[in-house]
Amino acid sequence: MSGSTLDGEQMRRDFDSLLKIGATGDGGVNRPTFSDAHLEARKWFLARAGAAGLETQVDSAGNHSAIYRSRRQNAQTLVLGSHLDSVPSGGGYDGAVGVVGGLHVVMAFKRAGADLPFTLEAIDFTDEEGTLMGLLGSQAMVGTLDAAALKSPRGGREALLNGLRRAGLTEDSLFAARRDRNALAGYLELHIEQGPKLERAGIDIGVVTKIVGARSFRIELLGAGGHAGTTPMDARHDAGVAAARIIVKARNTVVRDFQEAVITFGGLQFEPGAFNVIPKSARLLMEFRAQDDALLDAIETAVRATIAAEAGAEGVTVEIIELAHWPAAKIDQRLAGVIEDAAKSLGLSTMRLPSGAGHDAQDFAPLVPAGMIFVPSVGGISHDPREFTKWEDVVNGANVLLKTVEELTRQQ
Amino acid sequence: MSGSTLDGEQMRRDFDSLLKIGATGDGGVNRPTFSDAHLEARKWFLARAGAAGLETQVDSAGNHSAIYRSRRQNAQTLVLGSHLDSVPSGGGYDGAVGVVGGLHVVMAFKRAGADLPFTLEAIDFTDEEGTLMGLLGSQAMVGTLDAAALKSPRGGREALLNGLRRAGLTEDSLFAARRDRNALAGYLELHIEQGPKLERAGIDIGVVTKIVGARSFRIELLGAGGHAGTTPMDARHDAGVAAARIIVKARNTVVRDFQEAVITFGGLQFEPGAFNVIPKSARLLMEFRAQDDALLDAIETAVRATIAAEAGAEGVTVEIIELAHWPAAKIDQRLAGVIEDAAKSLGLSTMRLPSGAGHDAQDFAPLVPAGMIFVPSVGGISHDPREFTKWEDVVNGANVLLKTVEELTRQQ
Repeated sequence: MSGSTLDGEQMRRDFDSLLKIGATGDGGVNRPTFSDAHLEARKWFLARAGAAGLETQVDSAGNHSAIYRSRRQNAQTLVLGSHLDSVPSGGGYDGAVGVVGGLHVVMAFKRAGADLPFTLEAIDFTDEEGTLMGLLGSQAMVGTLDAAALKSPRGGREALLNGLRRAGLTEDSLFAARRDRNALAGYLELHIEQGPKLERAGIDIGVVTKIVGARSFRIELLGAGGHAGTTPMDARHDAGVAAARIIVKARNTVVRDFQEAVITFGGLQFEPGAFNVIPKSARLLMEFRAQDDALLDAIETAVRATIAAEAGAEGVTVEIIELAHWPAAKIDQRLAGVIEDAAKSLGLSTMRLPSGAGHDAQDFAPLVPAGMIFVPSVGGISHDPREFTKWEDVVNGANVLLKTVEELTRQQ
Repeated sequence: MSGSTLDGEQMRRDFDSLLKIGATGDGGVNRPTFSDAHLEARKWFLARAGAAGLETQVDSAGNHSAIYRSRRQNAQTLVLGSHLDSVPSGGGYDGAVGVVGGLHVVMAFKRAGADLPFTLEAIDFTDEEGTLMGLLGSQAMVGTLDAAALKSPRGGREALLNGLRRAGLTEDSLFAARRDRNALAGYLELHIEQGPKLERAGIDIGVVTKIVGARSFRIELLGAGGHAGTTPMDARHDAGVAAARIIVKARNTVVRDFQEAVITFGGLQFEPGAFNVIPKSARLLMEFRAQDDALLDAIETAVRATIAAEAGAEGVTVEIIELAHWPAAKIDQRLAGVIEDAAKSLGLSTMRLPSGAGHDAQDFAPLVPAGMIFVPSVGGISHDPREFTKWEDVVNGANVLLKTVEELTRQQ
């Protein structure tokens, strides 16, 4: 099949419209899951798909779809996924490139009136970034959503329930979004790299080989409050000092002993939080990532020991609550070859690389053939308003996605 | 003069009523300056004083007074001061003991119809604890309020302006509260010790010799945001890690090199504050205290060097903003002797000790004879809901305050 071509100019106009929704004025966007800006972006997506004559659908996990159906009976669905939510004060490319790219690929096949062996569905997944939980929509769709994890989600139980209410969803409805894996032909995702490798190597297209695993935790430290003037230094049980010691030591441990891994303490709050009161308690957010699950286990063991030792040295009690546990995922090797061939047919250079970021693709990878296409991030910057990908690279990525779909139609 | 006696039972009922205002249910109170609970406590104070037939007054800095006037022309005023505001989620004794004790001493002289050589004025000072600024009301009264400091107060400019508005005050009105020092006969303050020395020594009454100096700062760290999965550890400029390094190192420096001093990092916040984003910026609250100003200078030099070194090591820029600067204050030695004699006349044991906490007394001490009476804190705990002083010790302290005033009437 051929004749399907991307309308690059229309895609640019659409992308620019989307960039304005939740724009923070510094080049970034602020679209945490189910915020007003996020809901507006999703509404925009449905309207855009509808205007292009595509079937639209919102499932009971809030996933938004633009669909071009196969005319064949019982056709499976090839999913082109990504997400429109952002981290707080994040960039405008993370997720958005894949949703707009996926939408325009589906529009291209629709425009060509293509007779496809599978239904093509561009999806904007719910809560990829984890404002509430992370990979929430894609987990709901593939049926790996964990009822226990919903009880203590990363963003807090109250934020989850409030968010679901805002979007007209419930915990039960999340589970009802599950699809039969036999209904799925495969999964493809176009995404910005979010790291510096493609740019440094001068390569157009990254073909993802695996997605790192990640674990996130909330660390609750409980010491003793007290007067900051009258409590001698050697009589303190300062939860803030304990948190600081944990950050410094755990970071050093990972840097020294686990060279491919990363560890981040993204949030920290002291209570009561006044100049003249010793912090009675501290709440610390931690996550680490590594390329395989054995490594994640080893890091967790080392970090838990560090946390216990540092808290103990301050006489502070500690509770470590695991909030998310995403296994490392392998990407389909055959599909990676198809993506590479598609890029080559367009005259684009490719390299294989792992993804240090998590993606909805990792929920599909254990179940169906899944592939990811990366385009370069300028300066490797992401999750920041400075996040940027050159427009020609976005178009290249969308064209590789389109060519990959075309090749898959031939292979069916 | 004699015949003035404290009504201990009424004082207990009053103290218990006050404990309920802003009660947090765990034995503590939450009455930050100009919060609803704080304003309610101040209203209670005026009503209680009025019901006892005392003249009441609120000055243009919001200081609340209960007054028993001397019948003599141009009599000076002896101030019995303390405060009804608390730190966030603090204890019910800090400040409240001195306000209720001072009020009841004034009530005792009023009941006796005493002919005093000075006007007696129990004052609840505005914002002693520094939710907004610290020692705000007493500085306004003695005329040491700094217009520049009002521009960047400890609690932030916006909180100050909002708070003043809530209380019907303005920056100009604060300055109008200044009193002529010649109108003041002296200053006395009853307060809980907030430390463990009296309890450990088994002593009833502490006679304060000096009040430590304190300096507080906001430390603004600016690094680079970025994706917590894709940004290599060696390419980060993590403002949170820089803050943690500063806490650990500066604490160690003070513990090692300045053995009588204390340093506290009471608050810390990361931005944007998400699991999967490297902290771009961090805001850290720091204060340190020491017994004389030369020591404060030396600590500041050492800590500033530590902050610069640790931020520099993470490639994070740093700005250190001084928010408060309270010199150490010496307490009047003659008045200390009067307090000791008063305690002895009641059969109470005494010891002299410095105050590690700041008090409104330190604003008066450079200008007029000022004295402080401490009563024991159980476990030395303060600025915490567990803060507690035995009722008999509160009564002892109030009786020493009364006897001290009696003795001063004789000396005039």
